[in-house]
Amino acid sequence: LTQKYSHKVLKRFLYYRQCLIKFQRQGFRKVFSYSLGEEAGVTAEQVRKDFSLFSIKGSRRGGYDIDYLLDSINDIFKQNSERLVILVGMGNIGQALINYQGFKENKIIIIAGFDLDPSKCLKRFAIPVYPPDRIPEIVIKSGVKTAIIAVPEISGQEICDLLVSAGIKAILNFSPILLKVPEDVIVNYVNLRNELETLFFYI
Amino acid sequence: LTQKYSHKVLKRFLYYRQCLIKFQRQGFRKVFSYSLGEEAGVTAEQVRKDFSLFSIKGSRRGGYDIDYLLDSINDIFKQNSERLVILVGMGNIGQALINYQGFKENKIIIIAGFDLDPSKCLKRFAIPVYPPDRIPEIVIKSGVKTAIIAVPEISGQEICDLLVSAGIKAILNFSPILLKVPEDVIVNYVNLRNELETLFFYI
Repeated sequence: LTQKYSHKVLKRFLYYRQCLIKFQRQGFRKVFSYSLGEEAGVTAEQVRKDFSLFSIKGSRRGGYDIDYLLDSINDIFKQNSERLVILVGMGNIGQALINYQGFKENKIIIIAGFDLDPSKCLKRFAIPVYPPDRIPEIVIKSGVKTAIIAVPEISGQEICDLLVSAGIKAILNFSPILLKVPEDVIVNYVNLRNELETLFFYI
Repeated sequence: LTQKYSHKVLKRFLYYRQCLIKFQRQGFRKVFSYSLGEEAGVTAEQVRKDFSLFSIKGSRRGGYDIDYLLDSINDIFKQNSERLVILVGMGNIGQALINYQGFKENKIIIIAGFDLDPSKCLKRFAIPVYPPDRIPEIVIKSGVKTAIIAVPEISGQEICDLLVSAGIKAILNFSPILLKVPEDVIVNYVNLRNELETLFFYI
């Protein structure tokens, strides 16, 4: 539950960052909680509460300094260091992710891909692609702690187990199954079909 | 708020469906709320509460009939009719979506793509691709009410406005911005970067 709560807060912080970058481009140096809240679609109270969680301070009269806010948010997400990821599954989604601009712009580096299909390992991609049995070796050598799973449903849990036993602590899962992981491993889920399908309920 | 609450319920229903299909494959015909709950990671009470929201009935002794549950869930998401979608943005994500197995398996048909880049409109994809100014014509002709936005941040709101004025009522948005839409339009957000980035907080 604590984890889930944090997850929502964290997503808001990422959204605040986006809004702050926009304000910065418009030439602003300071921002009040109500302006940031309005832009981000939350209340001013929420903004202040979120910032105080991480001891980020502003002044009642002058607001928050935008540079300081951005630095603080980048610290939370360790953006000031290199952020390494491995990717398992070189299908449509996997291939889209290795070229995804949103990762590149944010110093997120996919260092290697893995696929069960040997022909994928021979094909030329922007990153090296290996068979999954090389996961332990590469995780240990690189010290990577984060992985993306983009394999079909049927191999999702097997790949997850392999990643966890190799030392992976955080997983972004595109495979449409609920993964069973130890308590010290965190999983974020993206289920594209479900996101689209809930829309059909409303129309 | 009501919408957001419903959205969570709807996602659970899609997840129940997935679990039910698994049970069916294993040869089961009936399921109790506690078994389904365990598989789906929610309590038995939650399962019963969700089903009763849509007047889906089971018996205390015999549980729920799996065929009946699947039919009821498919009705909720209009899966018994064709579900049409248009896609704006033929970049990496857009191209992955037109080949995405999870849509095809669920009778979700992307009828057309759109892209600002004229070269994309000449390239051969699995679907026809047009310039965005043809959105109104194609929306009206096909009666489609659902669209996917997979364009860069900078053109997200402009494309959204064009879609809404053409009659689109539901949007799945991959563009990393909060869209401004009229009250009768629903938007689901998928922000791949943020999903990955929150993981770095934990490690």
